[in-house]
Amino acid sequence: MGENRFMQEAIELACENVRAGKGGPFAALVVKDGTVVACGVNLVTSTNDPTAHAEIVAIREACRALATFQLTGCEIYTTCEPCPMCMGAIYWARPSKVWFAATRADAARAGFDDAFIYEQLCLKPEERAIPAERLTCEQALAPFDEWARKTDKLRY
Amino acid sequence: MGENRFMQEAIELACENVRAGKGGPFAALVVKDGTVVACGVNLVTSTNDPTAHAEIVAIREACRALATFQLTGCEIYTTCEPCPMCMGAIYWARPSKVWFAATRADAARAGFDDAFIYEQLCLKPEERAIPAERLTCEQALAPFDEWARKTDKLRY
Repeated sequence: MGENRFMQEAIELACENVRAGKGGPFAALVVKDGTVVACGVNLVTSTNDPTAHAEIVAIREACRALATFQLTGCEIYTTCEPCPMCMGAIYWARPSKVWFAATRADAARAGFDDAFIYEQLCLKPEERAIPAERLTCEQALAPFDEWARKTDKLRY
Repeated sequence: MGENRFMQEAIELACENVRAGKGGPFAALVVKDGTVVACGVNLVTSTNDPTAHAEIVAIREACRALATFQLTGCEIYTTCEPCPMCMGAIYWARPSKVWFAATRADAARAGFDDAFIYEQLCLKPEERAIPAERLTCEQALAPFDEWARKTDKLRY
């Protein structure tokens, strides 16, 4: 029951985080080869950082600990289904698997926007509640041209 | 043509970032009342942080500068349509609008996963390339119960 041990630990961290007043009721662990590499709790309100969700904090900390920007071979245990921001971060970090306890519907019932944001991201950019509009711009592709020309680039 | 001035500045920052070898070909500005509050460039490879996309860096910096976790009344200018991670972060920070120059299709042609991740997030969690699986757990809702009981919580 290795999964349950890690999830139990994450749930305890999330409860503690609420009691300590550091942020929302979420925690996450990054696990590699059966060992916890890093943990994170939601620190949005205590650090004035809207990106400081548990998974983001845990991923950043795990990458620091492992001195890499890729979490190959790691698994993430999170107390709640990751929101689109965190799921996006997971895709960029490329761990092998995510385990979660509560769902986006549970999060919605607790007052969090996760399910709403999932719906929004499946809409066209210009149809969303926060509209994203393309600004036609002659130099739009200049950064990609610069990237294509760079011979010693480090891909990620 | 205020929009173009900010976008031009972002594009120059993105090109510079590639030449400096700090990360990918992306930059973003947070603008409030016609003034640049913060800027960010992609720092993934130079800081070993897969979450250090231009928009995330700019949002974190803008929140630090404004001492808040909400970017109410701000607009974000980004050289490329934000990926799901960054768009998620934008929803949590709640600026009023996003302007972008290149599209997710341009990013895909340059070798970046943005469009792929958008497709993935619209699939069921268990059907994705990085599977997210629910772990049935008796205490799954304990953090939300703790949150509901907390009388002095700061919502975000």
